[in-house]
Amino acid sequence: MNYFKPIVGKVVSVLVCDVPRSIASSPKDEILIHMAGVVGDKHYGSTFPSNARYPMYPRRTEIRNSRQVSIISVEELEKTAALLNIDRLDPEWYGANLVISGITSLTELPPGTRLTFPNGVVLVGNGENDPCMNVGRIVQENFPDRKNLGPEFVKAAISLRGITAWVEHPGSIAKSDIVQVNIPRLYDYAKRISE
Amino acid sequence: MNYFKPIVGKVVSVLVCDVPRSIASSPKDEILIHMAGVVGDKHYGSTFPSNARYPMYPRRTEIRNSRQVSIISVEELEKTAALLNIDRLDPEWYGANLVISGITSLTELPPGTRLTFPNGVVLVGNGENDPCMNVGRIVQENFPDRKNLGPEFVKAAISLRGITAWVEHPGSIAKSDIVQVNIPRLYDYAKRISE
Repeated sequence: MNYFKPIVGKVVSVLVCDVPRSIASSPKDEILIHMAGVVGDKHYGSTFPSNARYPMYPRRTEIRNSRQVSIISVEELEKTAALLNIDRLDPEWYGANLVISGITSLTELPPGTRLTFPNGVVLVGNGENDPCMNVGRIVQENFPDRKNLGPEFVKAAISLRGITAWVEHPGSIAKSDIVQVNIPRLYDYAKRISE
Repeated sequence: MNYFKPIVGKVVSVLVCDVPRSIASSPKDEILIHMAGVVGDKHYGSTFPSNARYPMYPRRTEIRNSRQVSIISVEELEKTAALLNIDRLDPEWYGANLVISGITSLTELPPGTRLTFPNGVVLVGNGENDPCMNVGRIVQENFPDRKNLGPEFVKAAISLRGITAWVEHPGSIAKSDIVQVNIPRLYDYAKRISE
């Protein structure tokens, strides 16, 4: 695989999805990453039951868990809040594990992108994490005076809701860590499709 | 993830890398696929030591094995042989596990592409498998009258040597199986890089 010149970002917060009966996450000083995901997170595991994101399977087929880590960016959070005309969107509401700054259009990073952290962790991205109503509902709860904010969020957050990733090498990630991002140069298969 | 309309190919041969002291593979009627890869294949395993393909790691770091299955196409084999002006290239020489027909520009399938087989197997592609001298040397051995064929192969096979993939769901694959290919619609991150 051919990569672009690495780019560099910064970890602004680290979180774990450990809130009972909620998809939300809560901030930590540091998170521990095993091959199976973020320790203590409800998405931890080598496999998981497939859902609507996997149209090629019957629902709840046990498949490899490649959605172990959820990564979002400060810049895209702010952009989405501005589109919705609300004063803030919190990473906790997204159930995010990592909030990063300094990476342009994080959500557009292609599958196969590698994110390398100083304490050993390397994550491989799957591409865009499509926004869903689970987050939309939490956003709505936080702005009770706004009508229809859930569906509005789902629409506004397209191409801005971050990526998911799987663990290629374990370790730990802390606030203020520097992250190096290796982005593969890909072919434009859409060109082939249209031929 | 948004996918293109699925496209369909056919499995022409299935092979296992079980040749002692060689990267070559040998043809079978059927191959068994576990979460850790192709049963009996030397690339079987949940992890493996990183090599030159992983510039972000010190050599031989134990990382998740995402290169479990090697997939090539009849059409690209023929195209590469024509470019080299030789009468054939055998899938065994590539150490391939699957030879497929009917998928245009297989090597250009982006990371995140899902290949679904009738007996349960779903594989997720990593994108291009860069050609290397290990295959080049075997090609050279088969055409002893040609000078410099190894390096010529490595150059000619760029964008034609197929892809690697990891197992999302286990099962088995047999000769003549139909494969459904789900190709993700990706952003063009190169555009962001150049901004």
